[in-house]
Amino acid sequence: MDHDNLRKLLKQVQKGTSSIDDALEELKTLPFEDLGYAKVDHHREIRNGFPEVIYCEGKTIDQVKGITLAMIQRGSSILGTRASKDVYEGVLEIAPDAVYHASAKCIVVNPKTQQLHPERTIAVVTAGTSDISVAEEAAVTAETFGQKVDRIYDVGVAGLHRLLAQLDRLRKAHVVIVVAGMEGALASVVGGLVDRPVIAVPTSIGYGASFNGLAALLTMLNSCASGVSVVNIDNGFGAAYTACLMIKD
Amino acid sequence: MDHDNLRKLLKQVQKGTSSIDDALEELKTLPFEDLGYAKVDHHREIRNGFPEVIYCEGKTIDQVKGITLAMIQRGSSILGTRASKDVYEGVLEIAPDAVYHASAKCIVVNPKTQQLHPERTIAVVTAGTSDISVAEEAAVTAETFGQKVDRIYDVGVAGLHRLLAQLDRLRKAHVVIVVAGMEGALASVVGGLVDRPVIAVPTSIGYGASFNGLAALLTMLNSCASGVSVVNIDNGFGAAYTACLMIKD
Amino acid sequence: MDHDNLRKLLKQVQKGTSSIDDALEELKTLPFEDLGYAKVDHHREIRNGFPEVIYCEGKTIDQVKGITLAMIQRGSSILGTRASKDVYEGVLEIAPDAVYHASAKCIVVNPKTQQLHPERTIAVVTAGTSDISVAEEAAVTAETFGQKVDRIYDVGVAGLHRLLAQLDRLRKAHVVIVVAGMEGALASVVGGLVDRPVIAVPTSIGYGASFNGLAALLTMLNSCASGVSVVNIDNGFGAAYTACLMIKD
Amino acid sequence: MDHDNLRKLLKQVQKGTSSIDDALEELKTLPFEDLGYAKVDHHREIRNGFPEVIYCEGKTIDQVKGITLAMIQRGSSILGTRASKDVYEGVLEIAPDAVYHASAKCIVVNPKTQQLHPERTIAVVTAGTSDISVAEEAAVTAETFGQKVDRIYDVGVAGLHRLLAQLDRLRKAHVVIVVAGMEGALASVVGGLVDRPVIAVPTSIGYGASFNGLAALLTMLNSCASGVSVVNIDNGFGAAYTACLMIKD
Amino acid sequence: MDHDNLRKLLKQVQKGTSSIDDALEELKTLPFEDLGYAKVDHHREIRNGFPEVIYCEGKTIDQVKGITLAMIQRGSSILGTRASKDVYEGVLEIAPDAVYHASAKCIVVNPKTQQLHPERTIAVVTAGTSDISVAEEAAVTAETFGQKVDRIYDVGVAGLHRLLAQLDRLRKAHVVIVVAGMEGALASVVGGLVDRPVIAVPTSIGYGASFNGLAALLTMLNSCASGVSVVNIDNGFGAAYTACLMIKD
Amino acid sequence: MDHDNLRKLLKQVQKGTSSIDDALEELKTLPFEDLGYAKVDHHREIRNGFPEVIYCEGKTIDQVKGITLAMIQRGSSILGTRASKDVYEGVLEIAPDAVYHASAKCIVVNPKTQQLHPERTIAVVTAGTSDISVAEEAAVTAETFGQKVDRIYDVGVAGLHRLLAQLDRLRKAHVVIVVAGMEGALASVVGGLVDRPVIAVPTSIGYGASFNGLAALLTMLNSCASGVSVVNIDNGFGAAYTACLMIKD
Amino acid sequence: MDHDNLRKLLKQVQKGTSSIDDALEELKTLPFEDLGYAKVDHHREIRNGFPEVIYCEGKTIDQVKGITLAMIQRGSSILGTRASKDVYEGVLEIAPDAVYHASAKCIVVNPKTQQLHPERTIAVVTAGTSDISVAEEAAVTAETFGQKVDRIYDVGVAGLHRLLAQLDRLRKAHVVIVVAGMEGALASVVGGLVDRPVIAVPTSIGYGASFNGLAALLTMLNSCASGVSVVNIDNGFGAAYTACLMIKD
Amino acid sequence: MDHDNLRKLLKQVQKGTSSIDDALEELKTLPFEDLGYAKVDHHREIRNGFPEVIYCEGKTIDQVKGITLAMIQRGSSILGTRASKDVYEGVLEIAPDAVYHASAKCIVVNPKTQQLHPERTIAVVTAGTSDISVAEEAAVTAETFGQKVDRIYDVGVAGLHRLLAQLDRLRKAHVVIVVAGMEGALASVVGGLVDRPVIAVPTSIGYGASFNGLAALLTMLNSCASGVSVVNIDNGFGAAYTACLMIKD
Repeated sequence: MDHDNLRKLLKQVQKGTSSIDDALEELKTLPFEDLGYAKVDHHREIRNGFPEVIYCEGKTIDQVKGITLAMIQRGSSILGTRASKDVYEGVLEIAPDAVYHASAKCIVVNPKTQQLHPERTIAVVTAGTSDISVAEEAAVTAETFGQKVDRIYDVGVAGLHRLLAQLDRLRKAHVVIVVAGMEGALASVVGGLVDRPVIAVPTSIGYGASFNGLAALLTMLNSCASGVSVVNIDNGFGAAYTACLMIKD
Repeated sequence: MDHDNLRKLLKQVQKGTSSIDDALEELKTLPFEDLGYAKVDHHREIRNGFPEVIYCEGKTIDQVKGITLAMIQRGSSILGTRASKDVYEGVLEIAPDAVYHASAKCIVVNPKTQQLHPERTIAVVTAGTSDISVAEEAAVTAETFGQKVDRIYDVGVAGLHRLLAQLDRLRKAHVVIVVAGMEGALASVVGGLVDRPVIAVPTSIGYGASFNGLAALLTMLNSCASGVSVVNIDNGFGAAYTACLMIKD
Repeated sequence: MDHDNLRKLLKQVQKGTSSIDDALEELKTLPFEDLGYAKVDHHREIRNGFPEVIYCEGKTIDQVKGITLAMIQRGSSILGTRASKDVYEGVLEIAPDAVYHASAKCIVVNPKTQQLHPERTIAVVTAGTSDISVAEEAAVTAETFGQKVDRIYDVGVAGLHRLLAQLDRLRKAHVVIVVAGMEGALASVVGGLVDRPVIAVPTSIGYGASFNGLAALLTMLNSCASGVSVVNIDNGFGAAYTACLMIKD
Repeated sequence: MDHDNLRKLLKQVQKGTSSIDDALEELKTLPFEDLGYAKVDHHREIRNGFPEVIYCEGKTIDQVKGITLAMIQRGSSILGTRASKDVYEGVLEIAPDAVYHASAKCIVVNPKTQQLHPERTIAVVTAGTSDISVAEEAAVTAETFGQKVDRIYDVGVAGLHRLLAQLDRLRKAHVVIVVAGMEGALASVVGGLVDRPVIAVPTSIGYGASFNGLAALLTMLNSCASGVSVVNIDNGFGAAYTACLMIKD
Repeated sequence: MDHDNLRKLLKQVQKGTSSIDDALEELKTLPFEDLGYAKVDHHREIRNGFPEVIYCEGKTIDQVKGITLAMIQRGSSILGTRASKDVYEGVLEIAPDAVYHASAKCIVVNPKTQQLHPERTIAVVTAGTSDISVAEEAAVTAETFGQKVDRIYDVGVAGLHRLLAQLDRLRKAHVVIVVAGMEGALASVVGGLVDRPVIAVPTSIGYGASFNGLAALLTMLNSCASGVSVVNIDNGFGAAYTACLMIKD
Repeated sequence: MDHDNLRKLLKQVQKGTSSIDDALEELKTLPFEDLGYAKVDHHREIRNGFPEVIYCEGKTIDQVKGITLAMIQRGSSILGTRASKDVYEGVLEIAPDAVYHASAKCIVVNPKTQQLHPERTIAVVTAGTSDISVAEEAAVTAETFGQKVDRIYDVGVAGLHRLLAQLDRLRKAHVVIVVAGMEGALASVVGGLVDRPVIAVPTSIGYGASFNGLAALLTMLNSCASGVSVVNIDNGFGAAYTACLMIKD
Repeated sequence: MDHDNLRKLLKQVQKGTSSIDDALEELKTLPFEDLGYAKVDHHREIRNGFPEVIYCEGKTIDQVKGITLAMIQRGSSILGTRASKDVYEGVLEIAPDAVYHASAKCIVVNPKTQQLHPERTIAVVTAGTSDISVAEEAAVTAETFGQKVDRIYDVGVAGLHRLLAQLDRLRKAHVVIVVAGMEGALASVVGGLVDRPVIAVPTSIGYGASFNGLAALLTMLNSCASGVSVVNIDNGFGAAYTACLMIKD
Repeated sequence: MDHDNLRKLLKQVQKGTSSIDDALEELKTLPFEDLGYAKVDHHREIRNGFPEVIYCEGKTIDQVKGITLAMIQRGSSILGTRASKDVYEGVLEIAPDAVYHASAKCIVVNPKTQQLHPERTIAVVTAGTSDISVAEEAAVTAETFGQKVDRIYDVGVAGLHRLLAQLDRLRKAHVVIVVAGMEGALASVVGGLVDRPVIAVPTSIGYGASFNGLAALLTMLNSCASGVSVVNIDNGFGAAYTACLMIKD
């Protein structure tokens, strides 16, 4: 798939240093590892230097352990998201220095120590206290990727002065991640106050007509402020990943 | 249904000044008038002094004219909402002094001249220019009911300073009607800034995931600010009616 | 944010009794307290004299306790909504005179003793027995705010005479809160019988096509009776808060 | 399919008066007529004596004419529903005595003259004036089937006394068809007042959160009053058909 | 509310045998009993002779017991629906002869012994085995009301011959209740085979895009067969109640 | 992308008959043609011999003409779907022998003359007359692909005998395409009667709670009969394409 | 129902070897067995040789056992889907050689040993590891029907090279079943790569705006690649059944 | 609101060069202009140098002209989106050099001539020809902001080779905007191929179960590829605005 590798491979075929069948084989064996139940993809980590990520929900503990092992053997940094305490304890058996971030429900093994960009910050902002768990998924993700985070929590629009008091911090950020449930209006307000991209994360916090985050999601998609884009409900990880791509340049 | 009238009626029966059959008849003939296609209800107007209201959508011009005529004959103030230009022209034939508010799509005949409450104001606020039509339905309704209105238009949260510049006017209002489409975040923000009831009117302005006002509706129902209640999408009339009930005491 | 304080502050700057940096600082420190996971907002209580409110759902017991503590230290009246028995027991440790309203799921500490308005009543009406829990959230909220409540329970429209028997009480109320699940028709009927604002609270009571309160919510938003506004599904608190704003004038 | 015919047929085969191939053929040729684009089903009319019905929407004028012709040739009573003026004019060419009910959008050819049940009445009730078109589809259907109808229009719950004034007529009906848009609460209220089956017809009348009749539909399905069953939005015909089945016994 | 009683009452007032205040009082005291959390309505039972019904879901055991007690004291037949085993055991304490129908989740106390109509039958039909629980709610309801029921279970349209084998029984019924989950097609097919009213009950049986009964509900509302009306998802009781109204005449 | 071509290409590189840059270029130029607004893909036609297809909706007449021209120049068979009369007239200018199927809204240029499989038939079945337009899109598609079609129209389940009369034809088909709107029950019934794959096409025919085909779609997805798979609402083309893949083997 | 049997039966009647009453009886007793709660249908198995299938969800253990017993007594192959461990243990009591496939949640008794078609393969493809459970339901179903399966798991489009590496296996398959949750894009991509029918199975894997599989379902229904048809969310069984019909020819 | 201006203002108050009332006034008059129906916000343009933007839909021609005039008088660059030909002709009267991009429905007056970032590119990619109109809104927006755009149109996943042929161009982009209707799978696939942020724009192109773009929206929100964020359906402008914020740094 990768243009440079393809050219190199074709050159080897031309020179005769690679047979055609080997080349075909090679073309199919871009770096991923087949565990049967999973094809562990080492591809992206090689290209962009981000840690490898395991989405733990819906996988058995044994599956998570197997995937982790395959990654450890390559010396990768690893981030496990949506991990229960039980999954963490399974992973501990094969990765004794794994760390568990309970509020974020994240397992981190061997996080990146090199800063992604020393002068840039991601602000992670929540509307309420109950949104913190999703915000922490974002913050821990970014930190595992080597990125500095500024946490600004519980500044929902019902008490606007709480938000305005943080204006300096907001405006210093290279990207702002806004995490909000209920009506999710915070994304629009922050979007109007800063001149940097805002990534909005609706949360499933709320009740009744919040429909598990649908209300906040629609609010954010319809934001009257420009510069706001949206990820899935409760997807703190995805917001942080996108933010890190912007940071990295 | 009305307790005092029922007592009076029973008294007449007791005294013999009313026969039982007459009483039964009377009980059935609370003030409404049967036009076949409509039962014009003069009941509320008698009780609370508000004008009579015709919701024109889905009625033929002849039906609107017939209902208007029945009201005029009782000397009522009349408000016709959701009225097209064509309906207005029909009404003009029987009510030559009827006035048409084009942006609000309202017909007004003989509006209340007595102020509902001289010292109280309803602020009608919109997020955008496109919401003005719904806001005007609210404003014209209140004015027809004898109520002073303060229009504050195009102060959506994307440019928060525009809203904050109107803080004095907002805080002087006895009730605030917030009219907003797209993501409808304005209701929450205003709700956090004032200490009076906020009536939120979602509008069908927007596109895509606004789903004709559903996004704004959900936003407003989930408002993190207390003191916000909601009426139907585009229901400027309903918001003003409720506000006038609050004003009147 | 508050106009008078801003003017006072600017006056101090003008007189030199406040430095610019102090003023800037002051502007940012409108009364809220930062606990990290929460920014406790004492702002509204100062302005309108209502108790401080904690929405307990989605917060850990420690977070609720921490927020309660910050409020107690200011001598506030406190209302905790959506509180489980466990949360209450946690709060008891720091507020030994806290009271738990089990049906309402509310914790009350130091309720307002001064009446909000001695001559006005809020009627809280339910369609069925199963709606009582939400109604009690409304009633306890209002009572904690110092407001008298008239409870009228189980008067759904399927037995209209039960409702009509309460007509006197309904018509004496300054505001009527209608709490109904299933098809929620009670709001429209009450709206047609009284001449005061009706705040409709859809509940999640029902099954099948009630879709957890959606049916009642839509019914209430489409009410053919004027004067009805709506809050979120099961939001007894919000209805009472809005009602108290109307009562207070 | 019909048990008696099958027995008769088998008897003929047994006796040898019908060959097997003829019998097979017969079994396939229950009374319907194949026009290519339509298989006109004369089956039901034979069995229950109701007129034949053409749902005109989505059919070309030529198709409606073709189907009508096939029916006329059998001397059937015919009801065409959802028919535009244009379709009617097409039908007139082949059925000069066809009558058009404009409000109901129904074409009637040769209606039943025999009463379905002389002592029973169907009450057709509407909440508002705008619901009359759907109600007329129901009323014209029933009348074409030979059934007497009592029209009670514009008695929505916002003015309860208008409805209660018709209590006698409602209670005299053998079946009550309630036609209502907006929030559709009328079905529940009527259901609580009568002791006969109520067939509820939600209409698409309304705006915003009525979602083209969805709100009324959900209201009616969740009716807290027993004895209410529901047909599709705007399906006046279906309600009348079901009612006539009940009348007929 | 009742016309005859009102006339009688007025007569007494006329004759002086009833004072006005007594009459007013009387008008408010149509037969219901106020338990605070419930207003037990003895009204309908008096009028139509059906048992009194308690919908148990969402009520505490004590509330169900209290309501049952009030009914027992009037010697009523009682049907408790959606009752758990625990509720039944509570009821047993005050009604030792109460019977529990586990599959139907119904409690029956003192069922009607007089037949509603000796020559008429309600057929209760299910598409699958999993729909039986809802069907039993219908069947037990009808039997408690004194009505004979013919159960025809597991005759879904995927094996049409199973259904056709029951054609005789289907066609003998005065009303047919069709209970079906998944795609709910059975209602349309039965509707096409019989000439009596069909009451369709969608069930929440299914998975994925059945959306807890929504698919079956929509299918039934859109039935191409005439004579089908629909009740709420899983509402076996409602279907039987309506059917009994039809039976009773 | 194609394995054999890749091997051939690599062989040429190995032999030196192709330079690396040429090979890279080649790899990018699998057979499609870039018109700027469209990349005409000749790839599939080469592989499976099916005609090339243009989905005309949302394209300008000039765009359709441009794409058609590119295809004609390669001598392809062409099928244009969702084409208005206007589009057809545009295409006529460059393809004078193009044929327009009005009911199907299809343009056909140079249809396949060779039969796809001479002994296999696709049955295209509709529930009603109004579904014929979608069915014709399916039928014309199959015929343009060289496949014989058996049209069985207007055999909806409300008159089951009409369907059963066609049982022979249904059972002779290799694949059955069932086209139905409203409640879409026909797919389940046919699925239970035949032992071949059924492709169900929901149509947008219906009103009210059919929600433009959603009801039929859900019905078909939840079919209790096995062997039924579903395509998008009104997607007659897609059903026929899939059927032809099955036919072709 | 079956044409040939009907002919044979009629012949016997003609010859007098079967009485009319016997014939009628016979017509009603196509092979199914009535257990009261279930009518076990042996019809299909006789016709197409597929195993008999029990959908276990929503059935009691005793019901599943009863149905299994009826099938065992006829020597059928049996597949029980959606079976919990508990159900399996119940079945073991009457079928000691029953096998439980835990990931697929399937019970298999006496699977087909004869190959459905020795030269054809069904490829079962998943986007992720979490989709495997649904894929296994498909694979076990096909294998129980005597069909060879090629499992290709965890090849979602986020790492396209993982999918392309399996291109050979994909293209060798006679039918491809694509199992994917989250956004379900894999179906479209595979649909574009192969020239055989693709059966898409959306899964409920995902969170937030996946709405329990709705997102994947809509994706697959709207697939821009032709040749893709869709079954219900998580319906691995249905996909395999349809695939086997295609294989069998 | 702006920190620096506030400090400056306070300094002037301190020095006495500004009175308190003037300062208050100033605080309210951040740069916006009040036209009654609109408050033209010059704030953002001053801060980030982007053109001023008018969303024309729902505004009258006179309103658009009035707003344009206010902007022209400040010498601003202006972008009008969702503008019909009629609106453009109105604008021409006051801005004779205004340019209309018909496919994008954009009016541009005095576009930015200075490049936003000379070495960075935004790739705008569409799945189909019908998505081009939305893509052009994005492209014209970016170009009006001074940003270079690479258009890659009609590379949907059904013909994957068309997309892979553009891999070089995709990977050269600083940000990729993916515009797709129908099932919207392109966003996930592109997200897996590039290491830069992807902004996904669902379009309303499609039919049936695309539900006007809902299907594509859900697909994109659930993307299994990381680095994808989403804007509203058809919101080409919003995607380009966000992209430009990323470009600008």
